[in-house]
Amino acid sequence: MVVVMEREATQADIDAVAERVRSMGGEAFVSRGTVHTIIGLVGDTERFSAVDWKQLPGVDHVIHIGKPYKMVAADLHPEPSTVSIGATPVGRGTFTIIAGPCAVESEDQALISTKAAKAAGATILRGDVFKPRTSPYSFQGLGERGLEILEECRRQTGLPIVVEVTDVSHVMRVAEVADCVRVGTRNAQNFELLKEVGLARRPVMLKRGLAMTIDEWLQAAEYVAQRGNSEIVLCERGIRTFEPATRNTLDLAGMAVAQHESHLPVMVDPSHAVGKRHLVAAMARAAVAAGADAVMIDVHPEPEVALCDGPQALTPDEMIDLGRDLERIAEAIGRPVNRADG
Amino acid sequence: MVVVMEREATQADIDAVAERVRSMGGEAFVSRGTVHTIIGLVGDTERFSAVDWKQLPGVDHVIHIGKPYKMVAADLHPEPSTVSIGATPVGRGTFTIIAGPCAVESEDQALISTKAAKAAGATILRGDVFKPRTSPYSFQGLGERGLEILEECRRQTGLPIVVEVTDVSHVMRVAEVADCVRVGTRNAQNFELLKEVGLARRPVMLKRGLAMTIDEWLQAAEYVAQRGNSEIVLCERGIRTFEPATRNTLDLAGMAVAQHESHLPVMVDPSHAVGKRHLVAAMARAAVAAGADAVMIDVHPEPEVALCDGPQALTPDEMIDLGRDLERIAEAIGRPVNRADG
Amino acid sequence: MVVVMEREATQADIDAVAERVRSMGGEAFVSRGTVHTIIGLVGDTERFSAVDWKQLPGVDHVIHIGKPYKMVAADLHPEPSTVSIGATPVGRGTFTIIAGPCAVESEDQALISTKAAKAAGATILRGDVFKPRTSPYSFQGLGERGLEILEECRRQTGLPIVVEVTDVSHVMRVAEVADCVRVGTRNAQNFELLKEVGLARRPVMLKRGLAMTIDEWLQAAEYVAQRGNSEIVLCERGIRTFEPATRNTLDLAGMAVAQHESHLPVMVDPSHAVGKRHLVAAMARAAVAAGADAVMIDVHPEPEVALCDGPQALTPDEMIDLGRDLERIAEAIGRPVNRADG
Amino acid sequence: MVVVMEREATQADIDAVAERVRSMGGEAFVSRGTVHTIIGLVGDTERFSAVDWKQLPGVDHVIHIGKPYKMVAADLHPEPSTVSIGATPVGRGTFTIIAGPCAVESEDQALISTKAAKAAGATILRGDVFKPRTSPYSFQGLGERGLEILEECRRQTGLPIVVEVTDVSHVMRVAEVADCVRVGTRNAQNFELLKEVGLARRPVMLKRGLAMTIDEWLQAAEYVAQRGNSEIVLCERGIRTFEPATRNTLDLAGMAVAQHESHLPVMVDPSHAVGKRHLVAAMARAAVAAGADAVMIDVHPEPEVALCDGPQALTPDEMIDLGRDLERIAEAIGRPVNRADG
Repeated sequence: MVVVMEREATQADIDAVAERVRSMGGEAFVSRGTVHTIIGLVGDTERFSAVDWKQLPGVDHVIHIGKPYKMVAADLHPEPSTVSIGATPVGRGTFTIIAGPCAVESEDQALISTKAAKAAGATILRGDVFKPRTSPYSFQGLGERGLEILEECRRQTGLPIVVEVTDVSHVMRVAEVADCVRVGTRNAQNFELLKEVGLARRPVMLKRGLAMTIDEWLQAAEYVAQRGNSEIVLCERGIRTFEPATRNTLDLAGMAVAQHESHLPVMVDPSHAVGKRHLVAAMARAAVAAGADAVMIDVHPEPEVALCDGPQALTPDEMIDLGRDLERIAEAIGRPVNRADG
Repeated sequence: MVVVMEREATQADIDAVAERVRSMGGEAFVSRGTVHTIIGLVGDTERFSAVDWKQLPGVDHVIHIGKPYKMVAADLHPEPSTVSIGATPVGRGTFTIIAGPCAVESEDQALISTKAAKAAGATILRGDVFKPRTSPYSFQGLGERGLEILEECRRQTGLPIVVEVTDVSHVMRVAEVADCVRVGTRNAQNFELLKEVGLARRPVMLKRGLAMTIDEWLQAAEYVAQRGNSEIVLCERGIRTFEPATRNTLDLAGMAVAQHESHLPVMVDPSHAVGKRHLVAAMARAAVAAGADAVMIDVHPEPEVALCDGPQALTPDEMIDLGRDLERIAEAIGRPVNRADG
Repeated sequence: MVVVMEREATQADIDAVAERVRSMGGEAFVSRGTVHTIIGLVGDTERFSAVDWKQLPGVDHVIHIGKPYKMVAADLHPEPSTVSIGATPVGRGTFTIIAGPCAVESEDQALISTKAAKAAGATILRGDVFKPRTSPYSFQGLGERGLEILEECRRQTGLPIVVEVTDVSHVMRVAEVADCVRVGTRNAQNFELLKEVGLARRPVMLKRGLAMTIDEWLQAAEYVAQRGNSEIVLCERGIRTFEPATRNTLDLAGMAVAQHESHLPVMVDPSHAVGKRHLVAAMARAAVAAGADAVMIDVHPEPEVALCDGPQALTPDEMIDLGRDLERIAEAIGRPVNRADG
Repeated sequence: MVVVMEREATQADIDAVAERVRSMGGEAFVSRGTVHTIIGLVGDTERFSAVDWKQLPGVDHVIHIGKPYKMVAADLHPEPSTVSIGATPVGRGTFTIIAGPCAVESEDQALISTKAAKAAGATILRGDVFKPRTSPYSFQGLGERGLEILEECRRQTGLPIVVEVTDVSHVMRVAEVADCVRVGTRNAQNFELLKEVGLARRPVMLKRGLAMTIDEWLQAAEYVAQRGNSEIVLCERGIRTFEPATRNTLDLAGMAVAQHESHLPVMVDPSHAVGKRHLVAAMARAAVAAGADAVMIDVHPEPEVALCDGPQALTPDEMIDLGRDLERIAEAIGRPVNRADG
């Protein structure tokens, strides 16, 4: 941590900062510049962070050198983690395709979609039963009945499933059924929900919030890890920018930065990022080429009648084509692809 | 609603759209342009909205003419609403100052802050007991003990209080004590929480999300209104932009747009928008001049030791000076200011 | 300047940095933290900045303590400047209204608009003859003929005029006629144009670019000042954000930050920021309340037939009402208003 | 074009709009909705666009159906274009690598960089001699001497070169030497410069502005095309967002949208988008996988002493590795790669 003094700061101001540091058991290294004097703080950074140094006379601002997260940081855990969702590993050593319907609407729709997902090479299924919708007049999900349908999908395909949770009260019930619980973009800073999934005995997929910096995203992951659950997969899904042509702006470089700053697996959801079918495949291909650990794709047997996000869903045939492209690119960059058994 | 056909759309495509409209009991008005044919849909807009027209052959895109919210819209309720928080009215006919500590830290700190708030002309108090913090290592609030302190503050000042709720499980307990429950920026699209405060018998202050358009903000308010609670005050508190010099970018014009599009009172929180003490007063003055229905200001007796957001809190003396300025500007533009009884 | 070392940096890496600093005639102060070692650099900051320290072994990143601008910085010139445009002073000690047509379209339109501007209390006129338009199919301005009309407007009202320049080749010609040359938002980082207006013997109004941080804006001003012209007025006019309801998002706090970081006068253009007539007056009132040194307002006798930006222009009557409001608010906060001589 | 009437609009208001349309030789199709009446305008859209319909009584807003650009639109020119830079084609049928130094600093530095570029498979060279720099204290380029060095690079490698122009006065001189002139991100709405390169007899590479929507980018291209030069290559290079971890946010989906909306080749500059060496290769790989027509990469023999943008430049060895990866991915998706002769 570095305290930067104002140009008008007096010797007494500088001494007072140094004294405060020493009173907390630390050391203060003073560099007197021609304009600003700066003071390097050495000692218990966490204690230093609790002080609002800017309030002391003569202090201009404070610069934090370390990261505001620890348990998820690459710094202290340089080996990348692999998270197992059911029997499927997700991590830097492999490439995983997750696919399925955005929302579970009926048993037929879910089964057709998940079988297409498996045929396309997916080794994890997606399918939501509680949908956070911008408008209260939109379809809100099947709830409990949806969970039963998902269990049937898993029984028939043998693949593990990931399901979104939208409230503390759902978490334990969803975690009984799902192989991975997902926290969505609108709840990415719902800290009570993060704490609750931190107590669940299931891997957690944590989407990046629409307006979240990578630093904030990793701090959200820290909430989960702090409660004892370090089976976390980060999922980039586009951020909000001024560009209206796509639903959001997919930040692929942000995915790569998160892989660099944390030891967690980091994946990409191109479907929700772009919101338009003809762009989804291009962005999924880009994600694997950029080194994403997994991609998650919406599939629907009849996108034109989907109750949620139809315009971005691939048809089963399109999904199978995409799966083939993703495998080829993964091979081209020397990355093995997860495969479902038989 | 308007359906825009692709330039290659055939007569059969156009007929199919018109037929679909008629089958839903509506009428279709076709305008054949030199490039695009457009079809105006007249009838039950809600039913039309449920159809994914883009999926029909030859359809390029759809334009929604109406607003995606109804109960909070000015369109159908042109008279502006006034919401009473305790005995204090908030609305277009008056101007209200809300002030107090960001977080309740102790009885002393809370009492000094709320008395300063009252002395500065505040007629509603603020003070939080559950704090949603970006970092899990930051102070998370006093919880239940904080609520008792707030009751004491109200007893001593006679002023109503507004308190943030961060999870469905807190809402009913906070609503017993608080005169107004607040949904914060990070929960502005926590739809389960919105539904729950919609069931509370207390006014709701709904902050704008960091990355929320005004349309989305009003749809969030619609979630609350739909459950039967239309005592809603909207609060602009800055949006996330590329500019790092301030914590967020205060969107005062957004406040004015929300006043125009909805009948709800709309207020401003300059403290959380800018995050720096020397800018808070300037933005509070700007808010009243722009026509805000209220402002909410963080006050702390000793900002330098505050456990939360110290750098943005005004001292009691600064708050009293600001109160005087706000009254003068309100007068200059002919707007009466709420006053607490002697 | 502070060099932060990687956690794996060796003593040799640290010594190499310190040695390099000393070889440049500076001093290096080393603070060894538990995770990172940091090195404070004291000496000729400009020389240090030219080195790419990140390229040295073991260096993680570099933190710049000083500002990247000097001549326009408040640091080295704490007294706020006043810039005279014709006989009208613009600065912290007064409040100035600038008004007139967005674009000069005809002598009649310009004369009616500028007379209304004067009647409303404006002491500087605006009116453009070269219009930078997003679409090549939009009206591009009257050019030379427009300059003659503006001279006539000045002759009849006695007020100085501010005119936009859009290319190096126009600058000297416009500067012969105009009392102030303006660099628009789309050219705010057209560095060749900035250098040229730096050579003009006229005050320069420098608008903030649509995506410019305040730091970058002040560096753009530095380009002008470096060429010898320090008669610069900064003009906030909205930044680009995700919110579509207004043309841009007016960053009033950004205006206040620019006043704090530089000694230059800083003003606001609410018309171009919001793009909608019913919001312009509210934002102009907010600007004066926030402490802006001037506002600039588009006026048009018949906005419905304006060739450029009609939807944001006030009618002469609306302008006169607004002038009255602005004077009252300025008085309420104790700020004298510039007045034209009878 | 569609005119949407206010809910309070009278029959007379509707008639007045229809009458105005007819007086301009067009037809008006009226759809009376339960809330809003809408009027479809058929006829000369360009004439209609010149009218400010919002100014007519009872008009709420206007919706433009067509695109604001024509000559560069895919609509009217569905076959993708190929642009030849020297002997190298750039377009949908091939994939091209452009590489070289960000700025020309010396003959040695330029020759080493361009030879590495060629060895890595580049078939076009880059190298700038006029640098638009945020700070006036940064290196501004070698100017004329730099052009001579570039000619020498071309002589020795046989490859065509692309060079940035920053002012109208440079365009014709640069166009004599360069095989392609580039308009940079900060000049992307410098309309005078766009008009001038529209007159040059050289292909133009047009970078997207930092805060430009795709619609605005294509309108900027229209300025060039309108002057008679339709040899335009669009270059996505990152947009400005709230995320500070990368210099800009690379909008790869925006690249794909531009390919869909226009017939022009669209390429990607990952170096300037992310600004950090360890991310450049990942984003270049993503770009080819997403279908970009070309990528442009900064190369420098000694990035640690580069005068401009060293932290993002690849070393010659890194560039050669990247070239190999790009070829493999291009093959995997069935796209032929341009190759230099022998």
